[in-house]
Amino acid sequence: MNIGIVGASGYIGETLVRLLARHPRVNLTVVTSRKLAGSAIGDAIPALRGQLPKLEFTDSDASKLAKNKDVDIYFLALPHGVAVEYARSLVNAGKKVIDLSADFRLNTSQRYEEFYGCPHPDPELLSRSKYVIPEIHNGSWKDAPIIGCPGCYPTSILIPIIPLLSDGVISNQGIIVNSLSGISGAGKKAEEYYSYCERAEDATPYGVPKHRHLSEIEQELSEASGKNIVIQFTPHLVPMIRGIITTIIAPANNNKSQDIYASWEKAYWGKPFISILPSGTPPHTSDLLHTNRIDISATHDPRTDNFIIHSAEDNLMKGAAGQAVQIMNLILGFPEDEGLI
Amino acid sequence: MNIGIVGASGYIGETLVRLLARHPRVNLTVVTSRKLAGSAIGDAIPALRGQLPKLEFTDSDASKLAKNKDVDIYFLALPHGVAVEYARSLVNAGKKVIDLSADFRLNTSQRYEEFYGCPHPDPELLSRSKYVIPEIHNGSWKDAPIIGCPGCYPTSILIPIIPLLSDGVISNQGIIVNSLSGISGAGKKAEEYYSYCERAEDATPYGVPKHRHLSEIEQELSEASGKNIVIQFTPHLVPMIRGIITTIIAPANNNKSQDIYASWEKAYWGKPFISILPSGTPPHTSDLLHTNRIDISATHDPRTDNFIIHSAEDNLMKGAAGQAVQIMNLILGFPEDEGLI
Amino acid sequence: MNIGIVGASGYIGETLVRLLARHPRVNLTVVTSRKLAGSAIGDAIPALRGQLPKLEFTDSDASKLAKNKDVDIYFLALPHGVAVEYARSLVNAGKKVIDLSADFRLNTSQRYEEFYGCPHPDPELLSRSKYVIPEIHNGSWKDAPIIGCPGCYPTSILIPIIPLLSDGVISNQGIIVNSLSGISGAGKKAEEYYSYCERAEDATPYGVPKHRHLSEIEQELSEASGKNIVIQFTPHLVPMIRGIITTIIAPANNNKSQDIYASWEKAYWGKPFISILPSGTPPHTSDLLHTNRIDISATHDPRTDNFIIHSAEDNLMKGAAGQAVQIMNLILGFPEDEGLI
Amino acid sequence: MNIGIVGASGYIGETLVRLLARHPRVNLTVVTSRKLAGSAIGDAIPALRGQLPKLEFTDSDASKLAKNKDVDIYFLALPHGVAVEYARSLVNAGKKVIDLSADFRLNTSQRYEEFYGCPHPDPELLSRSKYVIPEIHNGSWKDAPIIGCPGCYPTSILIPIIPLLSDGVISNQGIIVNSLSGISGAGKKAEEYYSYCERAEDATPYGVPKHRHLSEIEQELSEASGKNIVIQFTPHLVPMIRGIITTIIAPANNNKSQDIYASWEKAYWGKPFISILPSGTPPHTSDLLHTNRIDISATHDPRTDNFIIHSAEDNLMKGAAGQAVQIMNLILGFPEDEGLI
Repeated sequence: MNIGIVGASGYIGETLVRLLARHPRVNLTVVTSRKLAGSAIGDAIPALRGQLPKLEFTDSDASKLAKNKDVDIYFLALPHGVAVEYARSLVNAGKKVIDLSADFRLNTSQRYEEFYGCPHPDPELLSRSKYVIPEIHNGSWKDAPIIGCPGCYPTSILIPIIPLLSDGVISNQGIIVNSLSGISGAGKKAEEYYSYCERAEDATPYGVPKHRHLSEIEQELSEASGKNIVIQFTPHLVPMIRGIITTIIAPANNNKSQDIYASWEKAYWGKPFISILPSGTPPHTSDLLHTNRIDISATHDPRTDNFIIHSAEDNLMKGAAGQAVQIMNLILGFPEDEGLI
Repeated sequence: MNIGIVGASGYIGETLVRLLARHPRVNLTVVTSRKLAGSAIGDAIPALRGQLPKLEFTDSDASKLAKNKDVDIYFLALPHGVAVEYARSLVNAGKKVIDLSADFRLNTSQRYEEFYGCPHPDPELLSRSKYVIPEIHNGSWKDAPIIGCPGCYPTSILIPIIPLLSDGVISNQGIIVNSLSGISGAGKKAEEYYSYCERAEDATPYGVPKHRHLSEIEQELSEASGKNIVIQFTPHLVPMIRGIITTIIAPANNNKSQDIYASWEKAYWGKPFISILPSGTPPHTSDLLHTNRIDISATHDPRTDNFIIHSAEDNLMKGAAGQAVQIMNLILGFPEDEGLI
Repeated sequence: MNIGIVGASGYIGETLVRLLARHPRVNLTVVTSRKLAGSAIGDAIPALRGQLPKLEFTDSDASKLAKNKDVDIYFLALPHGVAVEYARSLVNAGKKVIDLSADFRLNTSQRYEEFYGCPHPDPELLSRSKYVIPEIHNGSWKDAPIIGCPGCYPTSILIPIIPLLSDGVISNQGIIVNSLSGISGAGKKAEEYYSYCERAEDATPYGVPKHRHLSEIEQELSEASGKNIVIQFTPHLVPMIRGIITTIIAPANNNKSQDIYASWEKAYWGKPFISILPSGTPPHTSDLLHTNRIDISATHDPRTDNFIIHSAEDNLMKGAAGQAVQIMNLILGFPEDEGLI
Repeated sequence: MNIGIVGASGYIGETLVRLLARHPRVNLTVVTSRKLAGSAIGDAIPALRGQLPKLEFTDSDASKLAKNKDVDIYFLALPHGVAVEYARSLVNAGKKVIDLSADFRLNTSQRYEEFYGCPHPDPELLSRSKYVIPEIHNGSWKDAPIIGCPGCYPTSILIPIIPLLSDGVISNQGIIVNSLSGISGAGKKAEEYYSYCERAEDATPYGVPKHRHLSEIEQELSEASGKNIVIQFTPHLVPMIRGIITTIIAPANNNKSQDIYASWEKAYWGKPFISILPSGTPPHTSDLLHTNRIDISATHDPRTDNFIIHSAEDNLMKGAAGQAVQIMNLILGFPEDEGLI
């Protein structure tokens, strides 16, 4: 299979290039970036110096990409609103699209407009796409022409609590989520705010109270529980390059920690990228850097009758590029962890 | 006034030495440390090289310290359980004690035992001490022989929400607190876990579900509201030297953001170390490093009817040594911010 | 005395504001910045929230500043080439100017052109200025209308070796200097290269082989030794906010370590900001953060007959704003360390 | 081939486990550590959670390891002085040993004693070992029973300058080396000095003037040039986890930059792990993290007639574990980069 990556100048695109360059079963044949067009891969992504000597960045021209017979699957690492334009051309030309923007994450145009400020640019195309976390969505998504990959925060929140809501282990009301993210979650930025001296030795909350990722989080939680779920979500920026810690406080539904673990074991037994840590063992982002894994654990607090649920992931891997490659593996019938260990 | 610091080898003790060395109205005459006894101050605390040339660390001998006529006030920067022993000798000798350990933070021996695993070593002495956050406790504590200084997390939690509970702006049930702390909060440690390579590029929750600081937090919240309050508190360690961010989710009691701000203005107007930031302006730990300030702000979320309340402080300053010097200033009738700007 | 700071939006300007805001003997009456004009100081520099409530940034209009009768001394924290224009207006109006740009660091217009690419814009004004490191230049500079403050690297290099060259302790040939600087040395930047994710976990050399600071370094070394001195200087960027370490390798002129120490003691005895560490005690930047000190030490290597000489400083303090305030103190006849401890 | 790792509790051992766990042509069958004996790999090295489920740490018993018929090659990640004891037993039992300590890096017992303070514990065994940097030593080392892997600093110094000395491009006198290392170079440490709060925001020189790695550096430089070479080497610790930058100042031997590049091209053409960057392009440690690559570049300074030569590497990869696996690949006739891309 031949693969193309559109918009590979950011951290997610770069991570996709690294992963697909060493993937044993696919050929990375096209990598595009308006900014880097004409550069050799190894010059623009120095971590790959000496590898991929024949490949260089080409321009991101949608119609040319659509006509390129050497590419079967395109990954889009583009801003929201831009991705949909490329997806339309590519899907019309029969290409499979795995999109990492926000353009194919929501089920309805209304929800998109509520959080992104304008109507969805192509609701018909949206209706043909599927939002996929492979460990959660076990259905027929493999044949969809477009896969919408989840955001980094949603992955860290949905994986630990979807089974608990489905199984009624936690209440569907009063869920409070706090997340801590490394700086790369904001993308590659030329802004004073994201400069080293401003971000080092600083922690801060942001995006309060209605971060855009709530749109997909609440959509999926509501679907899992059959009720309309509204949560409290507060992200924080902390001084590290990569990694997300999510702490979820959820009222116990007359359950105890062992029920959480039973629910998780049932849902995730044998899943190669989910590590269920013993109660009392908190996850660490550093354990997961450069892996596609998510580590989860939970504790019951008898004083409040809440569960305290934690997850950790690498925001660029399981939270973005790694999960997208995992999705590709499943579409192509490869082992789920091919090229990801 | 002549001042002594007992146990000055850790980060809090070191910060006390720095602050008191340049305080314009007191003389720092005694600095003790078992580990550093005999060293010149500037050798052990290189930030002070060239200052305090005549002062060196002496041994921490309680009876000698009690007999020292050149010292009026002692700051204790000792482990809990140890501080109480020194405090007894010093108070019996008529010295004033400002204690930074956990030994004089709780009102009852029972509460101490619940969180610290053994009965309080001297309940009678405990009953003569006062727990003080200067902006909250406006009473007669100045004459108490022993002041118990609050912990770093409690300061960051109590200052923003005590007035809100007193005024009934927030519910006294369902309060969820998440805090992010720099590594110095753990003290000066010779442990692999606290080594640079283990803590850099890592974030993690810890102390779940019953961190010791809950003892004083819930004691003070209960006192302010007149009800027994139990909260959910989850601290996290993030890779920076100093600083605490606290995010509090509290159900609104049929109130809106303006009520929070009215309550804060009423309680804290003119307080030199509390900055009330506009709603929507999140605090940053980096704005407060090496200051004795705490910055607070709040937002109402109409989707959940919760308040999202934030605070930021320097854990070694307003969270420990700075606040202790502020307390000393008030005891001695100095301007509250003397030596702290 | 009333003080103005022109161009206070960068890290050096901000540090000047902090220092002068709490200086006990001067009034900070004017702070300018095109970018921040109209903002309250505490909004633009959150570390100063609550202080200087009456002061706000004004626009940087040279003729208005020249006419302002409430200001006696202006600090210029402007880019090179811009500073000279302000200096001309201010000096013509009888103001004293302490300039932190490169515009008044070089003795000749030719040297300026060699390193800065264009002739000096005002050689006459240049000839009336003095380049000052207070511990080195003991002459009549106090009366000069314009003081050119040295760069951060030059301060870290000139202080340790000027006396050694003057005394002939080290050879004037074959001097090799390597420096490591924190990121704030590059200024407040909105560039991808200076973003957190690019600079954290990275070290790199830069500015090879002819960094602009060589112009003033070699000028001063040549003056001290009476010979034309050319050195090898390689700066490196390392992931910390502040601080410079300089390591100088210099051939011993038939001398031993004790001669270095004798030369330093002679030159720097009683200087409040120079700490001479014992041979074998390397300096640490962390010991000097937020201080105006420079720590120096040296070792003789019998295997090579070289001296290895180290210095450490805070690049924003002794390397820039702190030294500028020290210069102001000396001009005004204050204690050298007033407001700097 | 079956592989064992002895002493895998440190950073180098851990990196070996990671590399060999995913190496496609070898089986990792034994991993030992006194400290971790009995733990599952995934518990002790959380980055490997879920992988190697059948493998656990065993005790480091030399005679048992020697008798283990399931292991062909042992990597030793042990302290110097300890490694030699294991090596003797293992070699006597016919095992191949790849040692990462200092015990087999020096050609003579005298040189060992000069730098390590005691005579070499087994000069006969030493005489049967080979010190190997694969890109430099092209001889018969593959058959030696013991390979001594170079230290991290030596790798970063020898690769760039050995060909230049052999070709006479640089002078063999007056070579000055400064290196900057991340903290992991010191190993996994439970010492206050290596704690996060002490090492973050700090840079410092250390090991002056006679760091132990000089023993192997000067041995190899002398061998390459045919003259006894003494250099000046000053290492520095900077606040990052991994990575080494080395800056070498070497007098040009009537040569220019193009001669350096010609020498490098001749020596290293086709070598998969050496990237020769254009003159004026400085290397960055961040480009090399988690790779086995070394990036080198050079500039001629006409003002001093010196070359400024830079290298960057990941100290745990090309500087230790990665290079050891590269050596194993060559011994076993695998592609040099098998399992290392």
